[in-house]
Amino acid sequence: MDPYTLSKAFLELYYTTFDTNRAGLANLYQETSMLTFEGQKIEGSQNIVNKLTSLPFQQCKHSITTVDCQPSGPVDSMLIFVGGNLQLAGEQHALKFI
Amino acid sequence: MDPYTLSKAFLELYYTTFDTNRAGLANLYQETSMLTFEGQKIEGSQNIVNKLTSLPFQQCKHSITTVDCQPSGPVDSMLIFVGGNLQLAGEQHALKFI
Repeated sequence: MDPYTLSKAFLELYYTTFDTNRAGLANLYQETSMLTFEGQKIEGSQNIVNKLTSLPFQQCKHSITTVDCQPSGPVDSMLIFVGGNLQLAGEQHALKFI
Repeated sequence: MDPYTLSKAFLELYYTTFDTNRAGLANLYQETSMLTFEGQKIEGSQNIVNKLTSLPFQQCKHSITTVDCQPSGPVDSMLIFVGGNLQLAGEQHALKFI
């Protein structure tokens, strides 16, 4: 599978999980994973999922508009840059995300 | 120097070079460096600089508004996420960049 197709498949899995079963994201992070969220640094699968499940919205739907990917430092690693729209239930306008 | 201060120093150097001496960016890339630009993949210091110096504007000024950084895969590597405004000479409105 080429890197771009692999990236798209990962993003599809990630955002479908985010939108339908946010707690299930725990399977997509590792103990060494890091999340920086509005300046706050969070480390480890469970801490990251605790943060994401505590966000002040329930239903949401991510739509991806752009995907770029490059091989990253270690072998078999990839850097993905993704942008799109985030529609929250009850909100008229979608938020843009990167 | 802590990672955030180091990131800010690198970005200051990078964007000052971009805005005042774009060809000098060659010193800030390596032969293994990669740039993805609007879907186009470019590899190597000189190829990247050739692309950046061929952009259809001369004078520009980057202003940074947000910086997040995390340690990345290899030892002594860092992933920086930067956003800001790009003012082009003769344009009324700044472009946003990430």
